[in-house]
Amino acid sequence: MIETSDEQTPLTPVTVLGLGPMGRALASAFLNAGHQVTVWNRTSGKAGDLLDHGAVAAGSVQEAVRAGQVIIVCLIDYDAVQATLEPSQADWENRCLVNLTSGEPAQARQMSEWASSRGIDYLDGAILTPTPAIGTPSAAVLFSGAHDVYEAVQETMSAVGGAAVHLGDDPGQASAYEVALLDIFATSVNGIVHAFALASAEGIEPERFAAFATGIGGLLPEMITRFARQIQTGHYPGDRSTIASAASGITHIINTATTHGIDVGMLTAAKGIIDQAVADGYGTQGLARLSTMLHTRAVA
Amino acid sequence: MIETSDEQTPLTPVTVLGLGPMGRALASAFLNAGHQVTVWNRTSGKAGDLLDHGAVAAGSVQEAVRAGQVIIVCLIDYDAVQATLEPSQADWENRCLVNLTSGEPAQARQMSEWASSRGIDYLDGAILTPTPAIGTPSAAVLFSGAHDVYEAVQETMSAVGGAAVHLGDDPGQASAYEVALLDIFATSVNGIVHAFALASAEGIEPERFAAFATGIGGLLPEMITRFARQIQTGHYPGDRSTIASAASGITHIINTATTHGIDVGMLTAAKGIIDQAVADGYGTQGLARLSTMLHTRAVA
Repeated sequence: MIETSDEQTPLTPVTVLGLGPMGRALASAFLNAGHQVTVWNRTSGKAGDLLDHGAVAAGSVQEAVRAGQVIIVCLIDYDAVQATLEPSQADWENRCLVNLTSGEPAQARQMSEWASSRGIDYLDGAILTPTPAIGTPSAAVLFSGAHDVYEAVQETMSAVGGAAVHLGDDPGQASAYEVALLDIFATSVNGIVHAFALASAEGIEPERFAAFATGIGGLLPEMITRFARQIQTGHYPGDRSTIASAASGITHIINTATTHGIDVGMLTAAKGIIDQAVADGYGTQGLARLSTMLHTRAVA
Repeated sequence: MIETSDEQTPLTPVTVLGLGPMGRALASAFLNAGHQVTVWNRTSGKAGDLLDHGAVAAGSVQEAVRAGQVIIVCLIDYDAVQATLEPSQADWENRCLVNLTSGEPAQARQMSEWASSRGIDYLDGAILTPTPAIGTPSAAVLFSGAHDVYEAVQETMSAVGGAAVHLGDDPGQASAYEVALLDIFATSVNGIVHAFALASAEGIEPERFAAFATGIGGLLPEMITRFARQIQTGHYPGDRSTIASAASGITHIINTATTHGIDVGMLTAAKGIIDQAVADGYGTQGLARLSTMLHTRAVA
């Protein structure tokens, strides 16, 4: 057996600001990886188990920032991040701010400028997986912002688990991916609950309907890959399914939902885009062509 | 080796009315299974390869109906089915009508009554898989209508391949499943093309975005199964994701899309439902609760 020394380079001390479900999961992952962890939350009493596992609760943001070297922020929104950090300006020397709060690309860029104007090294991040995945190989986190800051925190952030990806210097990129992925997820979720309502109205039990509906999830990855290739090349063959057939299908859904007094707001909006594509002569093309129909005005 | 006789009970002669892509795929599957197949289309010249493989093109609907015993109809819509079959009333003795045209549950029920009033045995069906699956084990077809008609055509229809399911006597059930499944598919497709537009506006290449987006398809089957259980029991725990967090997320998407001049019609409609759920006090509940927010008026 090879003998190993107990004395190793001490791991970077970490601070976690914000102890919602995701903040707690992050703090827990850093503790499990052996980091010294300081936690802070606007309202106290959220640290719970974390203190039993060795975390230290700071009495103020300033104290929390001074205790760590990599400062992880996971709050409700970017406004909360700025309001929380404003009083800590003097405490950031030799520290990095890693902001994992969900938000918009423009907010991430503005936050990066805010940090830069105060001399704070800033990295933005987006967590793509739910809390149970944090600290496991299935976690997925995207980072964007200055490469040297990413390099400085990369080893520490590996405690979060899974695949970390640095998307480049634009601090807005992580949020851009997050928002676009959330777009698919949120739209699909709303379609799924609508379909359950429609099925119920037609006397189909939820669990019986689900047995058929689960198959649709399996169709999406291949379709997403195919759409990407078509959008990238600008060719939209209608060999699988055409926009004209989508127009007919969505009309059937709207008519059936209307019969049962079920909301058709999303479907009507989608039909508006589809009908415009047909009117523009794209009826025989594939569905990926619809991605070109969504710009409502020219943008500078 | 066991010797088999060449003389077997002859297979039921089949007629296919409508030679769009799906009608041609169906005719081809019946030919491959060894049936005598007669085809008809409103405009001629669509039979193509089918004639080389032994199909017979009928000169009229009446002739086509008389040539078959199981008459498959796959036309553009139910109006076309009725208009096409109207002149053939005298020709249906000992024949079954299997209508695989896409439509709405109410149309299927009305079509069944139309057939019944003319003494025609009627079965409605919905094909859930694209044309390449027809005649293979991955085909999926739902049937609804009188059980004795289903039993009479079951063996013949097995040529279509895959899993056939008879959903019961209500002729509208096959269309009801089809429309509700299409609801998920159509909504997801529109979300996917929207996400590609959003990603592109943020400088993310379609194929790079797709590498991350394909993972979302994998989340849906588990979620659909979980939602079904929650809707069935009326309990909507918010342990995975809450309606309040969905409200925040969809706002990020809308704001980002608006910045880029991208249409937000579907998202705004979805946000209206989500906001109503929050206003009704369901913010801390899970997303499946949204399925109860979609009835816009009481229905008798």
